[in-house]
Amino acid sequence: MTATVTDGPVDTLLTRYRARTMATLLAELPTGGPRYLYDLVADYPGRSGKGLRAALCVATCRAFGGTDDDTVVNVAATVELFHNAFLIHDDIQDGSEQRRGAPTLSARYGVPVALNVGNMTNLLALERLLANRDLLGSGTTWELVEQTRLMLRHSLEGQAIEVGWIRDNACDLTADDYYRMCLKKTSWYTCVYPCRTGILAVGDGRPGMDRMDRYGWFLGAAFQIQDDVLNLVGDYARYGKEISGDLWEGKRTLILIDFLDRCTPAERERTVRFLGADRAARTAPEVRWLHRRLLAYDSVAAAQGHARDLADAARTEAAAALGDRAESEDGRFLLALADYVVDRSR
Amino acid sequence: MTATVTDGPVDTLLTRYRARTMATLLAELPTGGPRYLYDLVADYPGRSGKGLRAALCVATCRAFGGTDDDTVVNVAATVELFHNAFLIHDDIQDGSEQRRGAPTLSARYGVPVALNVGNMTNLLALERLLANRDLLGSGTTWELVEQTRLMLRHSLEGQAIEVGWIRDNACDLTADDYYRMCLKKTSWYTCVYPCRTGILAVGDGRPGMDRMDRYGWFLGAAFQIQDDVLNLVGDYARYGKEISGDLWEGKRTLILIDFLDRCTPAERERTVRFLGADRAARTAPEVRWLHRRLLAYDSVAAAQGHARDLADAARTEAAAALGDRAESEDGRFLLALADYVVDRSR
Repeated sequence: MTATVTDGPVDTLLTRYRARTMATLLAELPTGGPRYLYDLVADYPGRSGKGLRAALCVATCRAFGGTDDDTVVNVAATVELFHNAFLIHDDIQDGSEQRRGAPTLSARYGVPVALNVGNMTNLLALERLLANRDLLGSGTTWELVEQTRLMLRHSLEGQAIEVGWIRDNACDLTADDYYRMCLKKTSWYTCVYPCRTGILAVGDGRPGMDRMDRYGWFLGAAFQIQDDVLNLVGDYARYGKEISGDLWEGKRTLILIDFLDRCTPAERERTVRFLGADRAARTAPEVRWLHRRLLAYDSVAAAQGHARDLADAARTEAAAALGDRAESEDGRFLLALADYVVDRSR
Repeated sequence: MTATVTDGPVDTLLTRYRARTMATLLAELPTGGPRYLYDLVADYPGRSGKGLRAALCVATCRAFGGTDDDTVVNVAATVELFHNAFLIHDDIQDGSEQRRGAPTLSARYGVPVALNVGNMTNLLALERLLANRDLLGSGTTWELVEQTRLMLRHSLEGQAIEVGWIRDNACDLTADDYYRMCLKKTSWYTCVYPCRTGILAVGDGRPGMDRMDRYGWFLGAAFQIQDDVLNLVGDYARYGKEISGDLWEGKRTLILIDFLDRCTPAERERTVRFLGADRAARTAPEVRWLHRRLLAYDSVAAAQGHARDLADAARTEAAAALGDRAESEDGRFLLALADYVVDRSR
C-alpha cells in the first residue's frame, strides 16, 4: 500500500470540502434576533480554519460509497458547529486570547457573551442534526443523535480530566495518562465522530460504522501532539494562537510530561511551583525559562517522534479499513491526512 | 372561580413532587468517571431548591388526566436538569458567589470546571429526554425534543438580551423591554416548558399542548419580578443568594428601570456611571447608595404591585384553561401557585 503524500492533493480536498461545508453552515444560520448572538455564532466559522473535521466526514462518506453530497455536507456542517462550540467554551476555560489569528470571542466580548454564544452554537448543531430526519429518515437520525451523545460524553469527560489536572496541579502524569485524556478530548470529536457520521451518511444501513475508529484514534492523537508542538515552536502568523499559550495555561502536554520525567530535582521543583500558581501569577521570564528547558531536553523533538509514529499507525489502519477504496481520490486523501496532521504548520 | 390560597397545600405538593423528581434525577446520574464532573452535576440538585419547575410539570400532567407518574416524573427530572445547567452557566456569567445558601460552583471550583459541569448537565438532560422513547414512543419523544429546542432557543435569546444590556450599558429601557426579555429568559423555561411537557406526558395524543401558555407567561414574569425584589429586600438565610447581587452585577430589573425613569438628572448620571463600570470596579458604598435610592423611590413596592397583577392574571388564565379540572388537587395547586410565587421569601 503506497500513497502519494504531497501537500497539494490534501490541500485541494481540504479546501473543497471546507468551502462547501462552511457555505452550507453559514447560509443556514438564523439572522436577526438580539445583539451578540447569531452574528457571533458565525464569527469563528468565518475565520480561516483548516476544516479538517468537515473534510474527514465528507471524504469518509465518499470513500465508502456515499453519493449524495448534500446529505453528507449537512452532516459535516453539524460536525463543524459542534467543533466551534467547543472552541468558544475551551477559549473561556483556558483564558486564551487568540484564535485563528484574531482575539477569542471571550477576549473581545467578555465571558458572559461568549458562554452564551457557545451554548447557542451547540443548540444550532443539535437542530441541524435533527433536521437530517428529512434527508436520512428517522432510524439513521436516531443513530446520528446517539453518536453525538457519545461524542459529547467523551469530549466533556476529556475536558474534565484536563481542567482537573490543572486544578489539582497534577505533576506525576505518565504518557499513558496523556494518551487516555487525548483520546477523549481530541480524537473522539476530531476524528472518530466525523468518520462515523460520514459512514452513517452513506445511508445504506450503516454496516461497520466503527471501521475507521482505530484510524481516528491514532490520527487524533498525532494531531493533538502536533498542536502542542506548534504551540511552542510554531509561527504565530500561520498557527493563529498565542505562542507558549499552553505554558501560560498550565496545559499538561506530552512534552511537559516528558520533561518533568527527566529533569533535575531543582528544575522539577521550579516547574511544579510555576504550574501551581494561578495563571495571573505566572510571569513572562518563568514562561521563557520553561520554554527553553523543554527545548533543551529535546522534549519537543521526542513528542514529534511519537506523533510521527502515531501518524504511521493511522495510515496503516486506514489502508486496512479502506481496502480497495484506498485507491480512490477520497481514500488517498484519508491516507495522506496522516502525514498532513504532523507536517502542518497551522 | 375561587381557590384556597394558603401556604400549606402549595408547600405539600411542591415538596412531594420535588422529592420524587429529585430522587429519580439523582438516582440515575452516572457515577465514576473523572474528578470534578458527575459528582458536581449532582451538587446544585442536591441543594434545597424549590422544585417549582418539576412541580409545574407533574401537576399539569395530573390535572390534565395523566395517570402514569413514572413517565411524568422522568420528564420533570429532565426539566430540572436543564434548569440546573442554566443556573451553573448563569452563575458564571453573572459572577455570582452564592446559590441556594452555599458558594456557586464557579466560586468553589473555578470557571473551567463549572462551565464543563454545566455542559455535562445539559447533555444528561438531553440523554434523559431521549430515553423517553421507551416510555412515550418515538412520536411524543420527537415532540418533546422539539419543545426542548424551542425552550433553549428562547432562553438563550433571553440571556443574550440581558448580557447585551449590561455590555452596552443600556440605560433607556422601558418596562416593555423588560417584559420581553423576561418572557424569553424566565417564563419560557420556568413555566411554559414545564406545562407543555407535562401535557405531552399525559400521552393521549397531546391535544392543546399550549393551553397553559398564557398562565406560564404571566406566572414566570411574576416569579422573576419577585426574584428581583428578594434580591434587594430578602432574607439571605431564606433566599440563599447574596443580597444586592443584582446591583453588583448591573442587572436591568423592572425596579432599576422604574428608578431610572423617575430619578433626578444627578441621580441618573451617578447610576449610569455606576452601571458603566466593570463589576470589579463597583464599590460597596455605591451599591448601598443605589439600594437606598431604589427603596426611597418606592421602585421595589411598585414592582411588587406589578408582580401581584401578573399573578392575578396567571390565576385567571389557569382557571379558564383548566375548567372543571381546577377543582382537582393539582388544579387547585396550579391556581395557588400564582400567589405563592409573589408571596415567597425563597
